[in-house]
Amino acid sequence: MENKKRPLILVTNDDGIFAGGIRSLVKVAREFGDVIVVAPDSPQSGMGHAVTLHNILRSQKVDPFDGVRAYACSGTPVDCVKLALFQIFKGKPDLLLSGINHGANNSINVIYSGTMSAAVEGAMDGIPSIGFSLLDHSAEADFSASEHICRKVIANAIENGIPNDTCLNVNIPKLPIDLIKGIKVCRQARASWEEEFDARKDPSGKEYYWVTGEFVNHDEGEDTDVWALENNYVSLVPVQYDLTAHHAIATLNSWKYE
Amino acid sequence: MENKKRPLILVTNDDGIFAGGIRSLVKVAREFGDVIVVAPDSPQSGMGHAVTLHNILRSQKVDPFDGVRAYACSGTPVDCVKLALFQIFKGKPDLLLSGINHGANNSINVIYSGTMSAAVEGAMDGIPSIGFSLLDHSAEADFSASEHICRKVIANAIENGIPNDTCLNVNIPKLPIDLIKGIKVCRQARASWEEEFDARKDPSGKEYYWVTGEFVNHDEGEDTDVWALENNYVSLVPVQYDLTAHHAIATLNSWKYE
Repeated sequence: MENKKRPLILVTNDDGIFAGGIRSLVKVAREFGDVIVVAPDSPQSGMGHAVTLHNILRSQKVDPFDGVRAYACSGTPVDCVKLALFQIFKGKPDLLLSGINHGANNSINVIYSGTMSAAVEGAMDGIPSIGFSLLDHSAEADFSASEHICRKVIANAIENGIPNDTCLNVNIPKLPIDLIKGIKVCRQARASWEEEFDARKDPSGKEYYWVTGEFVNHDEGEDTDVWALENNYVSLVPVQYDLTAHHAIATLNSWKYE
Repeated sequence: MENKKRPLILVTNDDGIFAGGIRSLVKVAREFGDVIVVAPDSPQSGMGHAVTLHNILRSQKVDPFDGVRAYACSGTPVDCVKLALFQIFKGKPDLLLSGINHGANNSINVIYSGTMSAAVEGAMDGIPSIGFSLLDHSAEADFSASEHICRKVIANAIENGIPNDTCLNVNIPKLPIDLIKGIKVCRQARASWEEEFDARKDPSGKEYYWVTGEFVNHDEGEDTDVWALENNYVSLVPVQYDLTAHHAIATLNSWKYE
């Protein structure tokens, strides 16, 4: 970072500002720079890249991180990033960190993930951005190995920068640090969700659903994030926001549009 | 389509099942096949790829389309697609159509768009999927030219299929059909939103915000969707859900992870 000033680091997440994972990420981030937290005031898992267009946003100064400047925001993770960049900060942060998520965001989960959408939003605004997730949904998950991994990835990001127009999706297996084999750069595995709708009746007899699903990996590749995690590696996937399927353009140009 | 049976077409949107744009899309879809509509019961613009994980979903049979089987769903556009595929349908539809959106979904708006996220969700489940948007936010927008464009694109999709693992993002300029120059296959333009937060006080004196923003195009290319639309073409961008920035993998492999 220029002039060797301490970097300014924005921390956010999707599990909410009072989750355990963000506490670990703030702790590690403070070792590297000056930290500001802008995170949702309630859990926002699965919010993807949603933004609040038809409702108001609120933001409240809170102090759950022992003196770190922190704001709880009523919106989605992407709202939090926009609020931080365009309302709370004067100038851009040097780094955006999102997480540590309670649960996996590998493979296609990157698309549903509020944690990763916050990182993508940061990248879209030109900020080096990283999302971290631990493969443990529990509210009481142990983030001690994750802190070690975050430290390594953040040190590299500050040293080397992050490739333009990308952010990083880091997923950490639920293992003690001495059983984690290392960090593997991967591609996103091909997979899908097979959903089930659990139909119930409310007290008035009207039907409603809970959605539950099963993650199904369709990818045999050993260069995927699914493979890495199954083999006790941390997966690191560079994520881009240019969704153009460039390889399909020639085929589509052969269609008859007249 | 196999055996020349009429294709089964799922129609959804993000403006809600009672919006004008979906009425036009259902009308055109009926010319090509048997239609089922599963769409949000309220406006869901900007919901991106959000899914409802921490709340219940409801679905109600409605009849706004003159005998077409239709369900209004309490969730997001992606919830609607999942509900349609895994609860309402027996077997997969042959085609998923989303829209016609009231307002642009070109460039990076594809990421925020509920309309396009529904199409992406369809593609993830192996269904040929197309999102349509008209560059007119008005509730009373004129969709007559759009219907003509939808007809051409749908005919091509049924004739040729859609390239694997992609869906189509079709944006239509706000022009009468005779002033539209044609359909142009494009890439997503590089752009960003410069947000402004309109801060106000509620009756109790507490601050809240409305987010407003300005779309800023950073891309001079003449092969982009922004260029096409500014030059009176319909833009057609193939969209993929593999977000891996494959070109960045080599750089990241040079980092020091030990």
